[in-house]
Amino acid sequence: MTKLVAGIDIGGTNTVFALVDERGTVHNCRTFPTEKYSVFDEYISALSQGIRALSSELDIPHEIAGIGIGAPNGNYYTGCVDSAANLRWKGVLHFAEKIKAHFEGIPVVLTNDANAAAIGEMIYGGAREMKNFVVITLGTGLGSGFVVNGEVMYGHDGFAGEFGHVSYMRNSRQCGCGRKGCLETFVSAPGLKRNIFELLATENHPSILRDIPFSQLSAKKIAEAAVEGDIIAKMAFEMTGRILGEMLSDLVAFTVPEAIFLFGGVAKSGDLILEPTRRHMEANLLSLWKGKVKLLISSLDENNAAVLGAAALAWKALIND
Amino acid sequence: MTKLVAGIDIGGTNTVFALVDERGTVHNCRTFPTEKYSVFDEYISALSQGIRALSSELDIPHEIAGIGIGAPNGNYYTGCVDSAANLRWKGVLHFAEKIKAHFEGIPVVLTNDANAAAIGEMIYGGAREMKNFVVITLGTGLGSGFVVNGEVMYGHDGFAGEFGHVSYMRNSRQCGCGRKGCLETFVSAPGLKRNIFELLATENHPSILRDIPFSQLSAKKIAEAAVEGDIIAKMAFEMTGRILGEMLSDLVAFTVPEAIFLFGGVAKSGDLILEPTRRHMEANLLSLWKGKVKLLISSLDENNAAVLGAAALAWKALIND
Repeated sequence: MTKLVAGIDIGGTNTVFALVDERGTVHNCRTFPTEKYSVFDEYISALSQGIRALSSELDIPHEIAGIGIGAPNGNYYTGCVDSAANLRWKGVLHFAEKIKAHFEGIPVVLTNDANAAAIGEMIYGGAREMKNFVVITLGTGLGSGFVVNGEVMYGHDGFAGEFGHVSYMRNSRQCGCGRKGCLETFVSAPGLKRNIFELLATENHPSILRDIPFSQLSAKKIAEAAVEGDIIAKMAFEMTGRILGEMLSDLVAFTVPEAIFLFGGVAKSGDLILEPTRRHMEANLLSLWKGKVKLLISSLDENNAAVLGAAALAWKALIND
Repeated sequence: MTKLVAGIDIGGTNTVFALVDERGTVHNCRTFPTEKYSVFDEYISALSQGIRALSSELDIPHEIAGIGIGAPNGNYYTGCVDSAANLRWKGVLHFAEKIKAHFEGIPVVLTNDANAAAIGEMIYGGAREMKNFVVITLGTGLGSGFVVNGEVMYGHDGFAGEFGHVSYMRNSRQCGCGRKGCLETFVSAPGLKRNIFELLATENHPSILRDIPFSQLSAKKIAEAAVEGDIIAKMAFEMTGRILGEMLSDLVAFTVPEAIFLFGGVAKSGDLILEPTRRHMEANLLSLWKGKVKLLISSLDENNAAVLGAAALAWKALIND
């Protein structure tokens, strides 16, 4: 009988779940709209039924050995999601406990998206032999998952690794967290957009981006403009890479990872972001570490990465038991 | 037969070593001048003889079960000290291996001063029940030892936790590391002095510190002036505490420690540094962590702390085996 785990990726719009084996093969996968459910318990019931349906449709003999959940603001210690801005249910949501009630005797573990990505990288991706590394997710925010001594660093309260809310420049750009100048206001998909608009304000170069309103601009459009040689777009990647590179040189002084993996929307632009980030990181590193820390794009398939991370979390919990 | 370990604290001027039991009692202790020995191997022989002498003088039946060494730039993984600015022997020094040759069959472990202080705090001090905490040493530099998931964070190369070389303000004050604007140029005993001289340059307040040349100023004199009401001295503690507090709020976003312990010369000034540091840390923390991270002065006795830390390192290695 094949052992499988269910990996669940909870997003504000959609929930994706899949049955995954120990080698990272996704046997089957399904998506349903998170935002359709106004009552949290109804959402949990639908999700649990969905997993059972996935299992009964699968034509190989198997058992579900564990369930892993990646969720915004997910806390590994408590199994709860606490005031996630992108979910319609408010307050503290007892995700792991509620799912567990539907799957008696099966371990259920939960963590946030960036930690799930880090575990995915460790179990299935480019960090398989590594004991110390970081995954930086560059999407609507900047998330980070740290692995230290072979274990995810959860910190005292389960919320460690908020690199996006380390200050880049105090009292500057307004951050969603209520403070000003957090790194994610400069480095993330919206951060890249804000960099474009700052450059459009300070520079006089012609740019096709002058014809696109803020609300319709995306990291993808900026990358396309840069590839076509748009000076402002290229300057924005240089600026974003400089800021990220400087801050990564500080990150290295904290945890000294063997590698730093970039993941998510902005990382898709590949060398456009990687090259300036690496150059500025190297220029700012303590000489001890120059040329020694790998900066890589995540090797996980973007389409499956989130559920793979969640599945890897479940596998890791089973291995540790 | 009582099991004891030898704790060795290697400083540029003096080497202190002691026999310590599992409860942290220092049975006997000795000091000899590090700088007297121009040949490294002669220093190692003298140190080893010293430990044997300490052991033979002790009138309780005992065995030496392990040896722990705290050294500037000490690397836990390699047991080496690499280009320590304060030691007269240059290049890579195989400390642990050389000591081991004198004590066959006894485990010898080495780490840097700040990590030894963290382990001392964990085994004998205020962090006894803690799995996640940081010790910040404020002396001639700013060192840091991080404990994550109950283990010291050594990073990929053994040199993790260089909080003193995280950038506070890029391209500002010259740091001994060759870069500019590292935190320790603002927060450390020399950092405090530099803050005084910056304030003497920018402010017009009368101050007794205007009569003391830079070379003769010390953290102790600045603390005494502040206690006597000297405005510049008080402003310098406010400035130092603001900078440290701001940077600690970023440190919390990385590792979320349960507590941050301050240790070393500047920490001796107590509330003068603690109060502004705590106030500015709280003001800058993500709301999630406000009021939740303890900021404390180390509870280890300053006179014994370094050898206790080194001894604790040896005990920790014995426990883990």
